[in-house]
Amino acid sequence: MTTTRQFDGGKLRHLLTLDGLPRATLERLLVRAQELTADAYGGTAQRAALAGKAVCTLFFEPSTRTRSSFSLAAQRLGADLLNFDASTASTTKGEADLDTLKTLEAMGVHAFVVRHKRDGAVAELADAAQPGTVLLNAGDGRSNHPTQGLLDMLTLRQAKGDDFSKLKVVIVGDVKHSRVARSDLHALRALGCGEIRVCGPASLLPDDGTLDGCIVGDDFDAMIEGVDAAMMLRLQRERMAEGLVASLEDYHRDYGLDAARLRRASPDAIVMHPGPMNRGIEITSEVADGAQSRVLRQVANGVAVRMAVLEALLG
Amino acid sequence: MTTTRQFDGGKLRHLLTLDGLPRATLERLLVRAQELTADAYGGTAQRAALAGKAVCTLFFEPSTRTRSSFSLAAQRLGADLLNFDASTASTTKGEADLDTLKTLEAMGVHAFVVRHKRDGAVAELADAAQPGTVLLNAGDGRSNHPTQGLLDMLTLRQAKGDDFSKLKVVIVGDVKHSRVARSDLHALRALGCGEIRVCGPASLLPDDGTLDGCIVGDDFDAMIEGVDAAMMLRLQRERMAEGLVASLEDYHRDYGLDAARLRRASPDAIVMHPGPMNRGIEITSEVADGAQSRVLRQVANGVAVRMAVLEALLG
Amino acid sequence: MTTTRQFDGGKLRHLLTLDGLPRATLERLLVRAQELTADAYGGTAQRAALAGKAVCTLFFEPSTRTRSSFSLAAQRLGADLLNFDASTASTTKGEADLDTLKTLEAMGVHAFVVRHKRDGAVAELADAAQPGTVLLNAGDGRSNHPTQGLLDMLTLRQAKGDDFSKLKVVIVGDVKHSRVARSDLHALRALGCGEIRVCGPASLLPDDGTLDGCIVGDDFDAMIEGVDAAMMLRLQRERMAEGLVASLEDYHRDYGLDAARLRRASPDAIVMHPGPMNRGIEITSEVADGAQSRVLRQVANGVAVRMAVLEALLG
Repeated sequence: MTTTRQFDGGKLRHLLTLDGLPRATLERLLVRAQELTADAYGGTAQRAALAGKAVCTLFFEPSTRTRSSFSLAAQRLGADLLNFDASTASTTKGEADLDTLKTLEAMGVHAFVVRHKRDGAVAELADAAQPGTVLLNAGDGRSNHPTQGLLDMLTLRQAKGDDFSKLKVVIVGDVKHSRVARSDLHALRALGCGEIRVCGPASLLPDDGTLDGCIVGDDFDAMIEGVDAAMMLRLQRERMAEGLVASLEDYHRDYGLDAARLRRASPDAIVMHPGPMNRGIEITSEVADGAQSRVLRQVANGVAVRMAVLEALLG
Repeated sequence: MTTTRQFDGGKLRHLLTLDGLPRATLERLLVRAQELTADAYGGTAQRAALAGKAVCTLFFEPSTRTRSSFSLAAQRLGADLLNFDASTASTTKGEADLDTLKTLEAMGVHAFVVRHKRDGAVAELADAAQPGTVLLNAGDGRSNHPTQGLLDMLTLRQAKGDDFSKLKVVIVGDVKHSRVARSDLHALRALGCGEIRVCGPASLLPDDGTLDGCIVGDDFDAMIEGVDAAMMLRLQRERMAEGLVASLEDYHRDYGLDAARLRRASPDAIVMHPGPMNRGIEITSEVADGAQSRVLRQVANGVAVRMAVLEALLG
Repeated sequence: MTTTRQFDGGKLRHLLTLDGLPRATLERLLVRAQELTADAYGGTAQRAALAGKAVCTLFFEPSTRTRSSFSLAAQRLGADLLNFDASTASTTKGEADLDTLKTLEAMGVHAFVVRHKRDGAVAELADAAQPGTVLLNAGDGRSNHPTQGLLDMLTLRQAKGDDFSKLKVVIVGDVKHSRVARSDLHALRALGCGEIRVCGPASLLPDDGTLDGCIVGDDFDAMIEGVDAAMMLRLQRERMAEGLVASLEDYHRDYGLDAARLRRASPDAIVMHPGPMNRGIEITSEVADGAQSRVLRQVANGVAVRMAVLEALLG
């Protein structure tokens, strides 16, 4: 449903989810993002691409990192930029959110980069937007974080080439509450990833069909065996209070990635993490800063991917 | 007093109030704003107009909407933009405000867009500014919100033409505490509006001469009869705590605009509201989102008006 | 140690401290800043200087004034600008700060303007940065505030010429906790200032070698005698709670600069203060706003100095 909503005729209009996005669309974005990696570091070639367009980061949940990445991407394409912090709004009623969107739209904002606590909130805003207005999901609830999924795929392609059919990937940790994991799963499936493994304690794995077709298990030592990439997830400390995780020590022992565990993976396996990392919990500093880590490359790719998406939607 | 203060020779230097502003000045701004409506949506024609000029939004009271509108206007004219949030300042002593202004002025800020809780605070800052520095009142106390007045007039002109002599307009609600209402009244008088009606409970109407020349009453059904425009005001919830309004239900029954009441107005009457709206209180969603509503047009006109004012003061 | 760290071959790479900075480097920056004073007020000549470069203000301690000055400087050189407020971070562990820096660096930020509560924190970040990444200390702990030192020197040069060998300067107040005073001392020594006097209560003077070579005393009337410049420091009110100052009244009587005291200085002495001023405490309004005050000139010079430094490091 959300999938068709994203297209207007054959053209991508919004980016709300990677779920059901055609492989060709996904690959076109990745190829363009790869081309833009040079500009992402300060080239001036694309400065005129979005001249006269206004991009608004509209965050109903704070996130300085993601907002910064989109801000730099928009500036590098020459767009006007408006940061609208809606996270301190007294009300979180959908009606008030909609009025905020319509108001900024009336001011001439062409594209909204939206983060929201609530699942589906960004798609609702997209439904209400005027024809021509573009919505970019920068994370909604635990459902989608499509640009994170794209930047993870770009990172995989750079390391492993564009044929994912022989790739073995393991996603590790709190998949249940993770929009990053869901977007990664959508993208890995669309790109024909050979084997997707998911590893975590039963309390942190979803049982709603999210993991269909994945190899699922709770023994990290077994699950990392021979993989080409380990995609680690951040453990939110609130999982402890919720009783879903016994202790940080236990979690680290069972699901933390250290150098010893990493040696079970393919020798040229890469390690990924969406950040910010809890060093010593889901990942050790030795691994996070080691030769196989692609954590900072992911961050760099984030700007290029966001430029590619803004360009595709607004250009 | 404030009026003459706004001029330097024959040239408009600050925009502090619409009170006493010559009709010709007002109309010139509206004509230019109308021309700029196209650019307000992202045209690039005016990009060089304020190149090298620095505009600072200096808000001693928070308002993300108004600040956003001015930010987009300044960017579209090619100005540098500095957002200075003074609303968290530990002190609100006039002396400290003045030091903030003088400091930013010394940094090379050419125009200040100032919002302040206190009546007259922006005019005081204007008095203290260097020759050449421009002050734009983005709302002070309950006294003035001149760009809101201008954008309301632009909205009226677009719907009703530029001859206001036959227009009947009703302003409804908490006029007593409203800088929007005061600026609208200043502008409507200057433009020769045929009939200005003001409607609200006695507790929310000023008795200080503000309404001189207006038709005043508390029977909304009677007051809306045959008007060309209904200008609704936001009801601040604090009026309840202050005992000025009995309940939201009573207020809505007596002063809320719904479809039935709107039918008493002229068939082509327009409905205006400065936003954000309390839907279900001063206005129903049916009316707010209906064919006669100009609420989003007002927002759009706000950017064009602010571009016109910045250009007139700084260009 | 920090001094050599600032250079890469013969080229200035970071600006972390003025301590040990060669006189020639310092003077080159001042000469260039003087040239840029015209552009600092909105000229457009330097707009292309940093096109495609991204500057990030990364403040672990809030300071709207300093951030604004750097923001305007970066915009006037045509750089992209990212404001990253790290002052609300839940943790202040060095590790998390480092991850923030590395993340923003990976996004393509070329220069970081960093303020931090902790002494040495900015130098630590500089050590961890990639080759090519530039760190600009906007104040760390009580140690360094090098651009403030530079702007103070520029202000002195404008008033007194570039030969400091005959100059008599007095620094007054809470030198012990002041990064401004330390940077001024570094610069005055490097530029060969004839006589540096330091005046304040013993409780607010450092005894760690900071004042080596200075004439130190607690009798302000005597210490101001015949000086060419009085550099006043801000008195933080927390010094009262810490028992380092008995009362504001006593402090003002003993170390406040009023018109009577100023008459003891050279007739063409100038008065400086880094702002924001506590009027009536370390300085009276009569002096702060008087003909000998250079307080606003210091602010204006700040933008030019920051442009010169950004240009030298990134150009």
